[in-house]
Amino acid sequence: MKTPQPAVVLLSGGMDSVTALYHVAAERPVAAALSFDYGAKHNARELPEAAWHAKNLGIRHVVLPLQFMGEHFASALLKGGAPIPKGHYEEDSMRQTVVPFRNGIMLAIAAGFAESCNAGALVIAAHAGDHAVYPDCREPFMAAMADAIREGTYEKLEVLRPFITFDKAAIAARGAALKVPFEHTWSCYVGGPIHCGECGTCVERREAFLNARLPDPTLYAHVGPLPPKPSP
Amino acid sequence: MKTPQPAVVLLSGGMDSVTALYHVAAERPVAAALSFDYGAKHNARELPEAAWHAKNLGIRHVVLPLQFMGEHFASALLKGGAPIPKGHYEEDSMRQTVVPFRNGIMLAIAAGFAESCNAGALVIAAHAGDHAVYPDCREPFMAAMADAIREGTYEKLEVLRPFITFDKAAIAARGAALKVPFEHTWSCYVGGPIHCGECGTCVERREAFLNARLPDPTLYAHVGPLPPKPSP
Repeated sequence: MKTPQPAVVLLSGGMDSVTALYHVAAERPVAAALSFDYGAKHNARELPEAAWHAKNLGIRHVVLPLQFMGEHFASALLKGGAPIPKGHYEEDSMRQTVVPFRNGIMLAIAAGFAESCNAGALVIAAHAGDHAVYPDCREPFMAAMADAIREGTYEKLEVLRPFITFDKAAIAARGAALKVPFEHTWSCYVGGPIHCGECGTCVERREAFLNARLPDPTLYAHVGPLPPKPSP
Repeated sequence: MKTPQPAVVLLSGGMDSVTALYHVAAERPVAAALSFDYGAKHNARELPEAAWHAKNLGIRHVVLPLQFMGEHFASALLKGGAPIPKGHYEEDSMRQTVVPFRNGIMLAIAAGFAESCNAGALVIAAHAGDHAVYPDCREPFMAAMADAIREGTYEKLEVLRPFITFDKAAIAARGAALKVPFEHTWSCYVGGPIHCGECGTCVERREAFLNARLPDPTLYAHVGPLPPKPSP
């Protein structure tokens, strides 16, 4: 059987991309795990977790700085932006945390990086539970971006979305099967010393473990009742 | 008649994007002209020209630094890379000057920037003469990337390619009609004190003025006979 071409994996340090790294490393060579320091409030929390997993798997880890986002882009997610809203990820208020076209920018840079290190594929942990408030998380965007990357690179680089049909609970289950040490993953957008338990990403993380009937190894500052999902 | 939405114009400081800036400014508001400092040998020559035109037209000019390209991407175009080859732009040797997925990266960042400043369109001076050696200059890439940007942004940002059916001589002619001061544009990839006259971009610039039967205001270090276009 032919060995598949090496892949570059987008790795934020959250539970989805960390699970994707273990998932991909189980089936093909990984040329590098690629992270971005883009001025988000939680970068200082998630990037060390990303580095931890790359080291754990013996994979090269590269962090690219994107300072211009913090300086020129408007978002509550970025340092200097408005406070992170509490509540459910599906709330309209989460729109404040959108960094305009963030996934498009990261995929484009990753494509150039992947061509520079002769990889044949790029992996992003986009999933079916990704959200109406983030247009650049949805599959119509992902499919068009994959076309653009195939057309715009010499080696017709593929963009793989192994979790595109999964919800977040299914990713948690896949991670558990791969024995991913989830205590070394970071979700909270607030970026405090421990997970806040109340922002949209914390709520979503708590729901994922709960729905997958898995123990949640996360230390949260607040573990009140989960807010209801808003009606569409 | 409704005023068209403001546009962000990608502006390198070369004759194509400078002409695009005047062309667009004649028909709609321009929210900003956007340039990138990405570690190319000729950035120090072209960026001041970009700034000159933005000032000349009273348009906000923003330069975003992309240092990671110089550090992590392989290309003769970048500082620290191999020497710029001489000869025709269509030569295989020009492939050395490809910066992997450069246009994809610049369009993606420009899309996020444009959403951050409430623009409704993005303008790139891609043209029909753009080259087989650069996959991310060709229309199949541009069309797919335009889809990705429309799908991945709230405001369904449009990517306009006003020169996509033009060759470079037609752009020169359009610029002459708009009275673009071409002496304030920079093409040469070598990035010396004056245009070298021998690299692929200089050859292409010389051909454009010649084919448009326009005076060429450029001072070249070498003005020997133009090399023949290689047979396909």
